[in-house]
Amino acid sequence: MATAGKVIKCKAAVAWEAGKPLSIEEVEVAPPQAMEVRVKILYTALCHTDVYFWEAKGQTPVFPRILGHEAGGIVESVGEGVTELVPGDHVLPVFTGECKDCAHCKSEESNLCDLLRINVDRGAMIGDGQSRFTINGKPIFHFVGTSTFGEYTVIHVGCLAKINPEAPLDKVCVLSCGISTGLGATLNVAKPKKGSTVAIFGLGAVGLAAMEGARMAGASRIIGVDLNPAKYEQAKKFGCTDFVNPKDHSKPAQEVLVEMTNGGVDRAVECIGHIDAMIAAFECVHDGWGVAVLVGVPHKEAVFKTYPMNFLNERTLKGTFFGNYKTRTDLPEVVEMYMRKELELEKFITHSVPFSQINTAFDLMLKGEGLRCVMRMDE
Amino acid sequence: MATAGKVIKCKAAVAWEAGKPLSIEEVEVAPPQAMEVRVKILYTALCHTDVYFWEAKGQTPVFPRILGHEAGGIVESVGEGVTELVPGDHVLPVFTGECKDCAHCKSEESNLCDLLRINVDRGAMIGDGQSRFTINGKPIFHFVGTSTFGEYTVIHVGCLAKINPEAPLDKVCVLSCGISTGLGATLNVAKPKKGSTVAIFGLGAVGLAAMEGARMAGASRIIGVDLNPAKYEQAKKFGCTDFVNPKDHSKPAQEVLVEMTNGGVDRAVECIGHIDAMIAAFECVHDGWGVAVLVGVPHKEAVFKTYPMNFLNERTLKGTFFGNYKTRTDLPEVVEMYMRKELELEKFITHSVPFSQINTAFDLMLKGEGLRCVMRMDE
Ligand SMILES: NC(=O)c1ccc[n+]([C@@H]2O[C@H](COP(=O)([O-])OP(=O)(O)OC[C@H]3O[C@@H](n4cnc5c(N)ncnc54)[C@H](O)[C@@H]3O)[C@@H](O)[C@H]2O)c1
Ligand SMILES: NC(=O)c1ccc[n+]([C@@H]2O[C@H](COP(=O)([O-])OP(=O)(O)OC[C@H]3O[C@@H](n4cnc5c(N)ncnc54)[C@H](O)[C@@H]3O)[C@@H](O)[C@H]2O)c1
Ligand SMILES: [Zn+2]
Ligand SMILES: [Zn+2]
Ligand SMILES: [Zn+2]
Ligand SMILES: [Zn+2]
Repeated sequence: MATAGKVIKCKAAVAWEAGKPLSIEEVEVAPPQAMEVRVKILYTALCHTDVYFWEAKGQTPVFPRILGHEAGGIVESVGEGVTELVPGDHVLPVFTGECKDCAHCKSEESNLCDLLRINVDRGAMIGDGQSRFTINGKPIFHFVGTSTFGEYTVIHVGCLAKINPEAPLDKVCVLSCGISTGLGATLNVAKPKKGSTVAIFGLGAVGLAAMEGARMAGASRIIGVDLNPAKYEQAKKFGCTDFVNPKDHSKPAQEVLVEMTNGGVDRAVECIGHIDAMIAAFECVHDGWGVAVLVGVPHKEAVFKTYPMNFLNERTLKGTFFGNYKTRTDLPEVVEMYMRKELELEKFITHSVPFSQINTAFDLMLKGEGLRCVMRMDE
Repeated sequence: MATAGKVIKCKAAVAWEAGKPLSIEEVEVAPPQAMEVRVKILYTALCHTDVYFWEAKGQTPVFPRILGHEAGGIVESVGEGVTELVPGDHVLPVFTGECKDCAHCKSEESNLCDLLRINVDRGAMIGDGQSRFTINGKPIFHFVGTSTFGEYTVIHVGCLAKINPEAPLDKVCVLSCGISTGLGATLNVAKPKKGSTVAIFGLGAVGLAAMEGARMAGASRIIGVDLNPAKYEQAKKFGCTDFVNPKDHSKPAQEVLVEMTNGGVDRAVECIGHIDAMIAAFECVHDGWGVAVLVGVPHKEAVFKTYPMNFLNERTLKGTFFGNYKTRTDLPEVVEMYMRKELELEKFITHSVPFSQINTAFDLMLKGEGLRCVMRMDE
């Protein structure tokens, strides 16, 4: 493209300060360096993680910063050494990458790439430790290697999934983070069998994606657990057959679930990040074959506690990160699941606004309204 | 056989009182009732569990009792409804059974049969709640459904594995309990890949059997962890390449293991039953793919504690009972592994005495000498 090798001036939403509304600015986006790719973002969505690092409570503040990590775009140009992508390729940026060279990437099971593992404090490219964004020459920090709240961004090639160019980017853009996380937690880690009973703790976007995985796997009973009774109606669209609100019971949720399932559920997936829910998710699975999967991220000081006999009676506990999907190897196939109409993404996209109204998307999320708000960059 | 349907008078070692030497008595063994089998025991071995229930510390005492649960024998006669076994069949009695009819037996994964799950307090047959053993008409209690410390015993058909009649019973008799437990913990649950690194916590018979499983699976590095430095020499015969004695280090065992393996072991199997070792076994596995398996039985009040991030970084924790082997379905194949010389059993059998010297076997175990002492019933 005519822009290759040149600085691109374009719009981006800059977070100047913690908790202050973002402002759309003209930024300079430098050309990609070795192993980097410059991507034209067409659609980007908002996730709790963006809000969390924008609020920056109890964190080392990294500002000014361009947030955003759920998106779909098209390769504009590539840096030295990039052979897997060419301009025009459709891509999903991901906050965690796959270098294909480290012990984790070489392991069939792990997606915790040593080189490109998520790093929330880093505000620059890993190659040269510099930012590719400037405003009047002053650097603006990157966010989790993606910074998709702008018309153009620069991303390490290992953090980009090359996907089917026929996939609608305004839909599949939500696969960059939470939806794949929940989906993969069920499909790749919990692996429920057809006809089994699955409990999902937490019915936010991640939990509903885990539930979508249970529906796709053919679970016959799907029990949603949430403190908010309003979540049940929405969850029904995702296959929820039973609802448990821990507030309605005097005994712990695990006991309620064990009783209503005659011994325990076959699989449980925790998508809240609260330690009590993590323990409940483990203790509610059936002895002999039950598997519980932890997804939610709890407080650093929280401690998981249980009687070892719960393990000895043949229960399994696993945790997952990004649903165990490898960014480059596995994500394109998730897009294909959508293309084959096995995976339904439309029900996750409850709102859509022009990019210029990004603060509306923040407001919706802060009010807890809807699941995903997709922003259209060209408006 | 001529004895079928009749009471058999034979020798058995009776534990009359907690902690008192056993005495060889003449006992009457009643014919098997529905779904029961009378077995002539040829060889029986001693395990910690026998000693534990003989000492009966802090337990509801069940005396007089015929202990014993590791053995090999031949079917003498069968009760009504028994179709799988006929007189002359070679069998291994097992303290936990397989009814083939409950949810656990029907599950591919579980061996925790609802009907025949181990019950250490029961001193009678489950069919009629009666004992099949008497001395001058006075009942003598059974032990874990096996009571192999006698020339004849009566066992539920679901607690008997029918094995290859060519297998030497004086060797394969040790497969009834601890050896299969450790072996299966590695082969069925931890499932190390060829070339992987495996840590075994506790180098008693169970841990060494877990180690034998690691050797059979082709692990290239096998790290033994034990407080007793004398265990290392013996463990080398089982493939142990490295030894860690937690007493030699000021930092926790998990940290020592993570350092010496550049990030953690691929698999860990805990065969001690101490909560700190259980936590160490989990925390020493590599993130991304590590699996830890708990085998040892800890104090009832002990609590397993860890930071949830250890799970979220893609570690797996499982527990197992009897190595996940189903008594009837799976144990015959373990005997075949021995027949094919893949599994080496001789190195577990460190002593052999005539049945009449059963108290010598108890003394050896109390002194911690050797691994298994096999008793020959015909002497
Ligand atoms: N890459 C990843 O691994 C990844 C990605 C995204 C999110 N996450 C984690 O997944 C979790 C869920 O994310 P989300 O975006 O769906 O969050 P969310 O806040 O939208 O949803 C959480 C739900 O849990 C419910 N809830 C809260 N406390 C509860 C309790 N004690 N018992 C029952 N229900 C309770 C809430 O009512 C809400 O419906 C978070 O911990 C997040 O950090 C992980
Ligand atoms: N069916 C089953 O699931 C089953 C069957 C048999 C045994 N077990 C359990 O397996 C465990 C081991 O049985 P075993 O017969 O091999 O026991 P054992 O006593 O022969 O061996 C235990 C070993 O652990 C070592 N040890 C003790 N505390 C330790 C610590 N804190 N750190 C490191 N090493 C330590 C001892 O020195 C010893 O070598 C027991 O808990 C037993 O109850 C389970
Ligand atoms: Zn990597
Ligand atoms: Zn996200
Ligand atoms: Zn059963
Ligand atoms: Zn035993």
